[in-house]
Amino acid sequence: MNELRKDPILGNWVIISPERGKRPQAFARPQRIIEKKEKVCPLCSGNENLTPPENYALRPKGSKPNTRGWRVRVVPNKFPALDREKKLVGERLGMFDVMSGFGDHEVIIETPDHDKNLRDQSIKELSEVLRTFQHRIRELYKDKRLRYCLVFKNEGWEAGASLEHPHSQLIATPVIPKRIIEELIGSRNYFKRKRRCIYCDILSQERKSKERIVYENKEYISFCPFASRFPFEIWLLPKRHNADFCSRTTKESISLLADALRTTMRKLASTLNNPQYNYVIHTIPNPISRHGYGKNIDRDFHWHIEIIPRLTRVAGFEWGADFYINPLAPEEAARTLRDANNREL
Amino acid sequence: MNELRKDPILGNWVIISPERGKRPQAFARPQRIIEKKEKVCPLCSGNENLTPPENYALRPKGSKPNTRGWRVRVVPNKFPALDREKKLVGERLGMFDVMSGFGDHEVIIETPDHDKNLRDQSIKELSEVLRTFQHRIRELYKDKRLRYCLVFKNEGWEAGASLEHPHSQLIATPVIPKRIIEELIGSRNYFKRKRRCIYCDILSQERKSKERIVYENKEYISFCPFASRFPFEIWLLPKRHNADFCSRTTKESISLLADALRTTMRKLASTLNNPQYNYVIHTIPNPISRHGYGKNIDRDFHWHIEIIPRLTRVAGFEWGADFYINPLAPEEAARTLRDANNREL
Repeated sequence: MNELRKDPILGNWVIISPERGKRPQAFARPQRIIEKKEKVCPLCSGNENLTPPENYALRPKGSKPNTRGWRVRVVPNKFPALDREKKLVGERLGMFDVMSGFGDHEVIIETPDHDKNLRDQSIKELSEVLRTFQHRIRELYKDKRLRYCLVFKNEGWEAGASLEHPHSQLIATPVIPKRIIEELIGSRNYFKRKRRCIYCDILSQERKSKERIVYENKEYISFCPFASRFPFEIWLLPKRHNADFCSRTTKESISLLADALRTTMRKLASTLNNPQYNYVIHTIPNPISRHGYGKNIDRDFHWHIEIIPRLTRVAGFEWGADFYINPLAPEEAARTLRDANNREL
Repeated sequence: MNELRKDPILGNWVIISPERGKRPQAFARPQRIIEKKEKVCPLCSGNENLTPPENYALRPKGSKPNTRGWRVRVVPNKFPALDREKKLVGERLGMFDVMSGFGDHEVIIETPDHDKNLRDQSIKELSEVLRTFQHRIRELYKDKRLRYCLVFKNEGWEAGASLEHPHSQLIATPVIPKRIIEELIGSRNYFKRKRRCIYCDILSQERKSKERIVYENKEYISFCPFASRFPFEIWLLPKRHNADFCSRTTKESISLLADALRTTMRKLASTLNNPQYNYVIHTIPNPISRHGYGKNIDRDFHWHIEIIPRLTRVAGFEWGADFYINPLAPEEAARTLRDANNREL
């Protein structure tokens, strides 16, 4: 029985999603069960029957759903954290707020090829993945109960992946995640004071100083943020003000985004020997449910991707206090990445 | 050159603390360098010359500093994240705020015995460790530039420890960590609305329902919080309202705290086969620098220890959005812990 629970002091929501039949003692030894190639991979081409029926796919005209031939394929998560079949009900338990586990959880299979990761994809292939993200977010936002869509990628066991096949995930929630709320509030407050977008101002300073820039093309830029929490943390943004990840759909713009993302990831890979990593797309909430963060959300906010390679351990100080110690200056990280290779490895 | 940098959007501070002589590429492969027993342990009795000179120790009257015989010993961290020798200077770099790496970073060696961890200590021994925490916080708070003292323990490699010998750490900072600020604000807002401490209200509800309680003695209680972010997350609190970890210094009270902490940790250990874990003490900021959070901070806040066993991987969803998926209901975790053994293992 999945549900959402609110921390009464800090206000953030947590998904309580007990794994079916798992006894509490089973947490004693974390198992390393990344699917190996010798096993049957449920995300590979030809194994379409091993996933729940697809929600969406890019496939040749006329080809049937859940058959071979697709290029990008979106399926419901087999073990969803949240579920759209549930009714959305909130409840008060004494002083606690709880909500049914309503929402959605999809897996975006980025390629039919088990071994072709983001860095090896062509610009055309990666563009199709990015377009699929846009399409799914737009589709899910038609349901006004879904207030936020979080698209993210975990690559590698330490980064949270349990399947090797290149994929990303989308979790749609009836609440807005805490870090996104804080960004919305932070950027709104800045605009009120300065009449400018805080991300645009950061970009302008970064482009002047150049010392934290990783890569830049006509429309997109990536850099190591001034107060990076982690070594080689990278943000990727559109250079022109834009709050909505889904708004730029021209072929040129998507290709440029694919180029910026792939180049940045290739530079990371060649510098750090294919590190495990997470990336998360931060975009605006569902337009239908934006009140509370101002009607000017498109003016205040600036969409971006946060990329975090998983290189260091996170200790008590960080968990307990949300106060990070970063053992590498972002200027050093950026310099190394600028000099790094941008070829297919 | 360590320094503190502020995230301009979210407002949190990050310590940038480059490891001397470490090249950026060196982050490619995390090294597992926990000190093994066959190596010389700098924290063991007899090796006092391998640490910087002690700041404080509990040792027999008349015995000299930095010699054998101590029971608890506090030394400066050999590789401090922050340093009290630095001047405290703030600076503006364009739109960014930066501060010199002023602060303090101590290691509390909890026992002279390499193999005697918290769970094996006598109540008397553990009481001395807790008293030492109180003493060091009080001492450091005499410096009004130190706004916060964070005491925490990392046990095990995955939890961030790089030495095996039982120890905890204290980082004193010229800023208040973000999560603490959020707790101060959350509890102040609740008091304003309800005229009651939010933690006291939570305790009262938990003690009525009993389903999330782990252990309780005359003065202290531990339970799995309603919106636990992690499986087996536990909070430990005084049952009577109290904002200041350092205020209760009677032998009886400290012994009861030692009992509650040791019992809780023993139950965790026997349920989960000695898991790696972090705990962090959340207490009030330096009394001298509390303005900003109201003169009623003692009334609004309630000190507590947050215990997080490191059992699951943290993925992109969590890092990127501060939105957690917990695969175990806290009621299940608490029930298992209540039934678990409380004997020395």
